[in-house]
Amino acid sequence: MSGSNNGNSQNGNGYRIIGSRPVRHDGVDKVTGRALYGADLRLSDCLHGKVLRSPHAHARILSIDTSEALASPGVKAVITSADYPETESKIIDLGEGPAILKDLRANLLADGKVLYKGHPIAAVAATDPFLAREATKKIKVEYEVLKPVLHINDAMAEGSPLLHEDLHTDSLGKKSDKPSNVAKHLRFEIGDIDKGFAEADEIFEREFDTAMVHQGYIEPHNATALWNADGHLTIWSSTQGAFSVRAQTAGILNIPESSIKAVPMEIGGGFGGKIPVYLEPIAAMLSKETGKAVKMTMDRDEVFESTGPTPGSVIKVKIGVKKNGKITAADASLAYEAGAFQGSPVNCGMMCIFAPYDIEHVRVDGYDVLVNKPKTAAYRAPGATNASMASETVIDEIARWASLDPIELRKLNAAKEGTVRADGLAYPRIGYVETLEACESHEHYKAPKEGSFRGRGVASGFWFNCGFKSSVTVSVEKDGTVRLIEGSTDIGGTRTSLAMQLAEILGIEAEDVRPMVVDTDSVGYTDITGGSRVTFATGLAVIEAGKKVQQEMARRAAQLWEVDASDVEVELDVYRSKSDSSKSITFKELAGSLDETGGALSEQASVSPQGVGGGFGTHIVDVEVDPDTGKVQVLRYTAAQDVGKAIHPSYVEGQIQGGAVQGIGWAIYEGYHYNEDGHMTNANFLDYRMPTTLDLPMIDTILVEVPNPGHPFGVRGVGEVPIVPPCAALANAIYDAIGIRLRELPMNSTRVLKALLKEKGALPQGVEA
Amino acid sequence: MSGSNNGNSQNGNGYRIIGSRPVRHDGVDKVTGRALYGADLRLSDCLHGKVLRSPHAHARILSIDTSEALASPGVKAVITSADYPETESKIIDLGEGPAILKDLRANLLADGKVLYKGHPIAAVAATDPFLAREATKKIKVEYEVLKPVLHINDAMAEGSPLLHEDLHTDSLGKKSDKPSNVAKHLRFEIGDIDKGFAEADEIFEREFDTAMVHQGYIEPHNATALWNADGHLTIWSSTQGAFSVRAQTAGILNIPESSIKAVPMEIGGGFGGKIPVYLEPIAAMLSKETGKAVKMTMDRDEVFESTGPTPGSVIKVKIGVKKNGKITAADASLAYEAGAFQGSPVNCGMMCIFAPYDIEHVRVDGYDVLVNKPKTAAYRAPGATNASMASETVIDEIARWASLDPIELRKLNAAKEGTVRADGLAYPRIGYVETLEACESHEHYKAPKEGSFRGRGVASGFWFNCGFKSSVTVSVEKDGTVRLIEGSTDIGGTRTSLAMQLAEILGIEAEDVRPMVVDTDSVGYTDITGGSRVTFATGLAVIEAGKKVQQEMARRAAQLWEVDASDVEVELDVYRSKSDSSKSITFKELAGSLDETGGALSEQASVSPQGVGGGFGTHIVDVEVDPDTGKVQVLRYTAAQDVGKAIHPSYVEGQIQGGAVQGIGWAIYEGYHYNEDGHMTNANFLDYRMPTTLDLPMIDTILVEVPNPGHPFGVRGVGEVPIVPPCAALANAIYDAIGIRLRELPMNSTRVLKALLKEKGALPQGVEA
Repeated sequence: MSGSNNGNSQNGNGYRIIGSRPVRHDGVDKVTGRALYGADLRLSDCLHGKVLRSPHAHARILSIDTSEALASPGVKAVITSADYPETESKIIDLGEGPAILKDLRANLLADGKVLYKGHPIAAVAATDPFLAREATKKIKVEYEVLKPVLHINDAMAEGSPLLHEDLHTDSLGKKSDKPSNVAKHLRFEIGDIDKGFAEADEIFEREFDTAMVHQGYIEPHNATALWNADGHLTIWSSTQGAFSVRAQTAGILNIPESSIKAVPMEIGGGFGGKIPVYLEPIAAMLSKETGKAVKMTMDRDEVFESTGPTPGSVIKVKIGVKKNGKITAADASLAYEAGAFQGSPVNCGMMCIFAPYDIEHVRVDGYDVLVNKPKTAAYRAPGATNASMASETVIDEIARWASLDPIELRKLNAAKEGTVRADGLAYPRIGYVETLEACESHEHYKAPKEGSFRGRGVASGFWFNCGFKSSVTVSVEKDGTVRLIEGSTDIGGTRTSLAMQLAEILGIEAEDVRPMVVDTDSVGYTDITGGSRVTFATGLAVIEAGKKVQQEMARRAAQLWEVDASDVEVELDVYRSKSDSSKSITFKELAGSLDETGGALSEQASVSPQGVGGGFGTHIVDVEVDPDTGKVQVLRYTAAQDVGKAIHPSYVEGQIQGGAVQGIGWAIYEGYHYNEDGHMTNANFLDYRMPTTLDLPMIDTILVEVPNPGHPFGVRGVGEVPIVPPCAALANAIYDAIGIRLRELPMNSTRVLKALLKEKGALPQGVEA
Repeated sequence: MSGSNNGNSQNGNGYRIIGSRPVRHDGVDKVTGRALYGADLRLSDCLHGKVLRSPHAHARILSIDTSEALASPGVKAVITSADYPETESKIIDLGEGPAILKDLRANLLADGKVLYKGHPIAAVAATDPFLAREATKKIKVEYEVLKPVLHINDAMAEGSPLLHEDLHTDSLGKKSDKPSNVAKHLRFEIGDIDKGFAEADEIFEREFDTAMVHQGYIEPHNATALWNADGHLTIWSSTQGAFSVRAQTAGILNIPESSIKAVPMEIGGGFGGKIPVYLEPIAAMLSKETGKAVKMTMDRDEVFESTGPTPGSVIKVKIGVKKNGKITAADASLAYEAGAFQGSPVNCGMMCIFAPYDIEHVRVDGYDVLVNKPKTAAYRAPGATNASMASETVIDEIARWASLDPIELRKLNAAKEGTVRADGLAYPRIGYVETLEACESHEHYKAPKEGSFRGRGVASGFWFNCGFKSSVTVSVEKDGTVRLIEGSTDIGGTRTSLAMQLAEILGIEAEDVRPMVVDTDSVGYTDITGGSRVTFATGLAVIEAGKKVQQEMARRAAQLWEVDASDVEVELDVYRSKSDSSKSITFKELAGSLDETGGALSEQASVSPQGVGGGFGTHIVDVEVDPDTGKVQVLRYTAAQDVGKAIHPSYVEGQIQGGAVQGIGWAIYEGYHYNEDGHMTNANFLDYRMPTTLDLPMIDTILVEVPNPGHPFGVRGVGEVPIVPPCAALANAIYDAIGIRLRELPMNSTRVLKALLKEKGALPQGVEA
């Protein structure tokens, strides 16, 4: 365990490179503005595409007339969902799992109905983006406007307007008879929930309501497509997974995956929101239609209104507890907004909601609920933050009720190796308790709380992390530098975290590795960058390929010396003959002899690993509430996390800081605001308030290192855990400051002020609490 | 053996794909104008570079003042040879052999002296190409103009002005005491030359003079360079070898090869002339200086005056022969223009000059001679055409003297398996005699010659072909298509000839293979496309990688069936269990199961093959000479060639036709014309006359297939052989038509008319013959 920003302090445990802090490989490109993002791409003779989007949150499309648009200046093509190629398949395999083709298509270009404001209806390709935008205005659409369904409770209510008239709830594996806005009802259950509650001395039952929020990546979506006359399609876009772009586009357009080359451009943030495609298949269709390259970029309002934010939710939590603070039972119901099409991350929320605790009797129900809002997508530990907001504030209540320090209560109930989670998984070695201990002994937690309207909150969070498939190719250059070709988009510094693992294996310097993220034609199949999987899973591929390279280098040395390969031993970058101590050669020297020993040396590895290590974090936050305005100021923030092993501690710290900041934004600022017509009224960065540096203290980090037994260096995913605890930690701190429990997100100044006024009985007449 | 254009007739010998004629993989890109050439590249914020070139053929540079140019509008940088980084090395390794760094550098930017008109002196980067061009005119250079040396005989004469005052002839391994324009004197010798001539009944001794000619590729040279702030340099250019661009640029600029990524763009012809770099290091230096991308393209006059044409030559041939036509001895002296820096392909000419014949006593001398013309480069069978012009016209004379049919005489003396060539190599199985027999029995050769001033000529030619290093990566897609990643620039259709070999091995269709030429970061080391080596050598890499893929696919099938890998047998694309006949799976089906059997499948192979098979061709040409103008019209042309095994017969036919046409151009049209100041007076495509379709009959081809034992499919290089015989064949046909032996190239109408007039004693006074 170590404090943050400690230079090379982590570089112990016998590692040479792991734990050090080399300069990032992509650093110069980023700071000099040289890195090429999708918007920087300029192909010859390229058209520009723009999308006509629905002005209504819910309406039936009666007719679309594109003739005037098609006749507009510079316009080369106009497409609608009628232009999709026919296909027999209903379910397509996206590599990450099956997807309903009809939904995928209808979300990209509306099919009969528009289901949210901003829902794409048609797309235009023209010689410049302004002419394309003008032409979209000339597309005539007749609508039958329907009542929008904007809140989960309304959507689930009897007699609610239906988004999909043919959708029947899939409840615990059975389809209901009658159509509904509830796409799915899932349940996890262990133990005997009734027995558990019967054992309790007290039962806490609370309800929570959280708003839809957006990932808020800086770079808007973009895609350029070139559908060649030979049937080969090239797509350049900002994505978390080029192979996923390829699979989605192939599925939607009913063409072979091998006919598509997806080129991942540099990415300006994704956080889960750049896994689905929004523009790629449309740009491709426009390119096919026109025979030219077509480039499309979104404006910010399009990003907010028409891409996948993370769901708002209604969560009910019921926890039974003994007087001594021991939890006997936990029950939760999570209803998550799917948006316009099914598929919210409610299952992830269900896995995470009680994950930090060792509870014998647990039941968790999950509901995937359709509302007239954009189809939701992943956002950093998708579903877990909503869930943690609910469970971790109730835990805080219980601690106060049991007169236990909140960390003590958590330690008392903490999950450990062998604890069985609600979904039935038994934990391998995990480091949750270690994060609690780290916080407990941290100077922040011991520091006195001074001043009125100030409070301190603690909360924990869990993310399970992912494995999936990764491929890499490692080649040795004649000068002893090494090329690392990978398919994992680098969002969080993984070029360097992978290069470091390779350097560690090969006994060379991190700077001697040149990591490159390449297109789908140039590397083996690799799943998305998501689930905090890359440093872990692609890391395993790197280690395997690195070991192959080392083995082959040893074989080359044997060849040079005319000895048997088994006679060569390797220590760091030195290859030696066991039988003749005069014979030794360094990696760099040996690299210079590749030509004489069989030529180019290149090794490939593909992995699909088990052994993913879940991660836990515990955060401490101090706040001050302004009693006159309701404004919450974050005074101090400390985040402890079990990171397994920090390959590059600065990046790990950065991930924790970034996650915490996004969690703070979610807690006290952010949220989609809808008017009664279902129009988002804050679809820009002025009105959709995200925290800035002026709103934040330094986020202190504590790296707890409990190695993951499933990775040779002990790596656990670190990117998602830190967004999980902040909402609950802030709610608990606000309670500590003003004695009021807030159970709705965001806890912005309006909401806090109302709560304060209501508490005082001073709420002005006509104002809802 | 087969006639040309016979559809799938070659598709026999048990091959399924080899010998068929699939549509070329790059065809659509080419015919739709989509293929990206260097000039199509448009980077953001890119500067444009232009070169100041010498107005003198030979001069000392007294001073260069770039200050006014640097102050010109839009100019960002001006460089001269003074800006080269320092280095200690004198010789650098270009992969294809050592090179003298000083020469490489001085040819790109003159160092103290200018040695040919067009010799680069300085380069300018500006915001647009016109401003850059204007600025070059403001560079002030003071010269001491020297007398140019323009002909080999002058250059070799005692007291000739010297190009390099410090260069001493390297004669048979020893340096001469005194400086000279002769860089090297080489000799091959077998048998006892004096004894051989003593055995002869008659000795023929003749001298030849051939002009410098250019490859005449359609696309001018181009290069764009981006020297990133992190030290990484990316170069996009038109080249026959991206790894050679990397090696040359790294050597000249004294930076590690691994810091350079060379991206080969689509290439519009090379023929050997796009192996040296001319712009790449200059663009790189300008990019380093300015911090921006710099693009450079040549105009046609720059291509003619400043890139590498093939040398003019002076060749003496002496052949001794018995009355029965049996050759007893052959002696030759070849003096080739090196141009301004040493390194003509005279050694290749020496290898080829008597290569078609089995002669006991042979001596060949070669001289590499400096003249004030551009540094020569390779051109299709470099050096062999000049040599063949000399030897094959003497052979024709001998046939007439011996009253033998010229093909009969050649058969009598023909080289066969076991024949020792002048350079000491003993031939493996070759197919020279078979080309003679093919011509002898061809309808063209039997057809009567009708009309006056008409004649028929025959000549043979040889090219040894090359091996070198190649790497490929083969990956299997889930839908059963296969990616073939290669480093060999595709000039002559090798994407398809390689894809076909892979398809043959894997039992799939050629269309199911997707061949791609990638950058130096994305494939293992691969030598230049040249020496007719790609279908042979890269083909061997493809075969090796394909076999690895097949083996791994079998292992995957075994895994699916839970049997031992040894239980799986493969026939075409079907994998079967030997022990359980119910188990069988096709390549495509198996490809769909890769995910369940260990993930992505990708195999790499690197080769450096022996077993190169030399190639022979024999051409027949009918001409008509216009006695009033001297114009030679080619009436009919048939080319027979031992192609080993034609992978794609249409390409092989195309190569033979293209080579023959370039040879025809060389014979009767082309040639650098210099005035006495050493200025090329025909540096454009109007005055440098190349044959057009209007000048040519259909070139008929005869594919003789004597398999090369060094390749599993019998492949021999085919691209270079066909340019070797045409000059001699035409000279022999002209003799047959008008009874005059022409021994100078080109045999253009001026030269032919003069010869006719001289023969008649009608040459006007004052006109030199």
